[in-house]
Amino acid sequence: MKEDYIIKQAELAKSSSVILSGLDSNTKNKAILNMAEAILKNRDKIILENKKDAEEAIKSKLNESLLKRLILDDAKINDMVNGLRDVAKLDNPVGKILEQTEIDEGLILYKVSCPIGVIGVVFESRPDAIPQIISLCIKSGNSVLLKGGIEARHSNKILFDILRKSAEAGGIPKNSIQMIETREQVAEMLKLGNYIDLLIPRGSNKFVKYIKENTKIPVLGHSEGICHVYVDRDADIKKAFEVCIDSKCQYPAACNSMETLLINKDIIKKFLPVIANFFLNANVELRLDSYSLKALNNSDKSILKNNRNKIKKAEEKDWGTEYSDLILSIKIVNDAEEAIGHINKFGSRHTDSIITENKETAEKFMSLVDSSSVMWNCSTRFADGYRYGKGAEVGISTAKIHSRGPVGLEGLIIYKYKLVGSGQIAKDYTGTNAKKFIHRKIRDN
Amino acid sequence: MKEDYIIKQAELAKSSSVILSGLDSNTKNKAILNMAEAILKNRDKIILENKKDAEEAIKSKLNESLLKRLILDDAKINDMVNGLRDVAKLDNPVGKILEQTEIDEGLILYKVSCPIGVIGVVFESRPDAIPQIISLCIKSGNSVLLKGGIEARHSNKILFDILRKSAEAGGIPKNSIQMIETREQVAEMLKLGNYIDLLIPRGSNKFVKYIKENTKIPVLGHSEGICHVYVDRDADIKKAFEVCIDSKCQYPAACNSMETLLINKDIIKKFLPVIANFFLNANVELRLDSYSLKALNNSDKSILKNNRNKIKKAEEKDWGTEYSDLILSIKIVNDAEEAIGHINKFGSRHTDSIITENKETAEKFMSLVDSSSVMWNCSTRFADGYRYGKGAEVGISTAKIHSRGPVGLEGLIIYKYKLVGSGQIAKDYTGTNAKKFIHRKIRDN
Repeated sequence: MKEDYIIKQAELAKSSSVILSGLDSNTKNKAILNMAEAILKNRDKIILENKKDAEEAIKSKLNESLLKRLILDDAKINDMVNGLRDVAKLDNPVGKILEQTEIDEGLILYKVSCPIGVIGVVFESRPDAIPQIISLCIKSGNSVLLKGGIEARHSNKILFDILRKSAEAGGIPKNSIQMIETREQVAEMLKLGNYIDLLIPRGSNKFVKYIKENTKIPVLGHSEGICHVYVDRDADIKKAFEVCIDSKCQYPAACNSMETLLINKDIIKKFLPVIANFFLNANVELRLDSYSLKALNNSDKSILKNNRNKIKKAEEKDWGTEYSDLILSIKIVNDAEEAIGHINKFGSRHTDSIITENKETAEKFMSLVDSSSVMWNCSTRFADGYRYGKGAEVGISTAKIHSRGPVGLEGLIIYKYKLVGSGQIAKDYTGTNAKKFIHRKIRDN
Repeated sequence: MKEDYIIKQAELAKSSSVILSGLDSNTKNKAILNMAEAILKNRDKIILENKKDAEEAIKSKLNESLLKRLILDDAKINDMVNGLRDVAKLDNPVGKILEQTEIDEGLILYKVSCPIGVIGVVFESRPDAIPQIISLCIKSGNSVLLKGGIEARHSNKILFDILRKSAEAGGIPKNSIQMIETREQVAEMLKLGNYIDLLIPRGSNKFVKYIKENTKIPVLGHSEGICHVYVDRDADIKKAFEVCIDSKCQYPAACNSMETLLINKDIIKKFLPVIANFFLNANVELRLDSYSLKALNNSDKSILKNNRNKIKKAEEKDWGTEYSDLILSIKIVNDAEEAIGHINKFGSRHTDSIITENKETAEKFMSLVDSSSVMWNCSTRFADGYRYGKGAEVGISTAKIHSRGPVGLEGLIIYKYKLVGSGQIAKDYTGTNAKKFIHRKIRDN
């Protein structure tokens, strides 16, 4: 019965998506700005509802980091409003002519950008994700079906009600924004492949992993960020030092932070003791392979002696672990090839950086490392939609098709072919007296 | 044990794909031309092996259409050779700079086209698909893992051996072309999501459907082609007549042939009897909705009387059936909106055409019909990689992400981001004295 109701919602979202796909840019932007105003107007109500969730969360002993993400304050509400206004400013991604080909005289093929259809968004805890994801879906002309966590149900409900009403008042078709409010497991939503064209999970790695493993719907997201920095024999040691510190320590919980440092054997002496000491002083626990452990001990016995509890021997599983914490594994490699091989074997195809002054080595690394972002002489922490200049980030994808790396609005867009003729039929282009195709590219991206 | 061997093959294909991804265009083209020469040289051997398959197929009573697709003759071998030479002529799709952004002074972000990784190809019967698919994978820098049907095992084996050897002699890394020769079910291959990035099934609708329903790997393909022509009230009747005949009769078994004809109620009199008579004379069975059945009877009672066995009343399930045969369902609609609604409800998001002289109606139809190819005043039969000027067709996709419609080499390509700096760290761009990003688009597609 409840399952039927979810299907009904999904059907409505799908049929409504057709109308939404044809809306002009002004209407969509007006609706998004309406949403921003509505949040400002209802600030107190939102905070009041959010307090109910926070109280229940504290009672039920929700963990600290989820609780932090759950609580809405004035600053977060201002961020939501500014985020909506930013999305309104982005170029309209729908209806762009991507390619144009003259198939024959008077028979023109257009490849035109269009929305995907219905986006399913499942998220944990963070209610401030709601305005962002709804606005990105509206801007890209997609219907959206939301399913939030039970722990944020009061906040989700009021935000959804405010946003849906203000969007509809601004001209967005009814039913294009839907929220699944029942207590059913996310599992129900993961079965709606006939209605949902793309799933975006927002939450912990574990949560995203669960989603990916339990649906046949394409998923835009990543469950792991095992990022590497490789310091080459031709590295500028000062750059290497700064980039490694930033990649590890600037925000260790981020998915684009370094988890494994690979060091070329020829620069052990001038690099390893200095960087190890820095990390140890910054309270970073080190997991060293046997080579680097020995080298560190040979260079300065006091380092190991003074940091017994912060230095461990790396195990095989360390190379495939995302610590998301002040922990770093270190491995010595013979050359760039070994570094590339290690990254392609143990990495998560997220973000990896090489530090070298040798252009050829850098080009090789960037070409052969099979990750969505590869970097040369800069911090892995730059892999981010905002830093890449995308205006808004839909997510970071480690998939190998459709969208990869930091994904902006383009991740919610596909294309269709429009063929415009004047009565042409295929028969005329086959057989002995077949007409010839022209196939002249008028526009090609 | 055998399962382990398949995994080993997939591992080798994956590790080899890294080297293949970095090959230059000349090496890849040389290898593809080598493959063409090798097929020419081994023409007799190939035909001999194919005869073994054909004999076994006849003994085991393989159905006629599969048998026809199985048998290789001189013409098919010439087609294979020409197909390979055509692929060699295509532009190299790898390493194109798609976007370039100045993030800050000396920090440049490149979005560069690159191979997807490992393509899994599963196919029924048709051995001449092997050179085409191997060459497309080489050209796009992807490793390929092939699994052919048992009914073509002799042909597949000799073609694979010849092609692999000549490709390797031409400089393609060892192990980047693999064939699974064991008798195991395709099912084993569908589990290799850790190694295979994209699956391409080649075969009957039923076969493709089976693949889609039994894997978590993304699938490029389509299982159904339920295509429509809508003849609008403002149609040029001569164009409508020709396009409808071509869309249905030019090659009824093709996925892009019309299965349902939608006719605007205002033109019933001048269009329905003429087109119905033509189809009946061309031996097309008609499945009419009650409205058109009545209208046809009113206009000319002799039509129904003379064609009792070729005219049926359409049932609900007819609207969702791909006949792939000389059968056509016909429905009367009130207007373009109803036609659009019908197509979006019952169609398979493949190819749909409108016949009208009204630009506004046509634009609306092309915007709101949610199919990979939408057409105005031309035959649905044009939806094809060759006719669209793609040079080679990987397949036709009814998916809503990555590649849609007739798919050329672009379906085997994704992109990666390369960020090139000179020691930049993310920390400098955060906090109170944060440096500002420039985000200047140098190149934008």
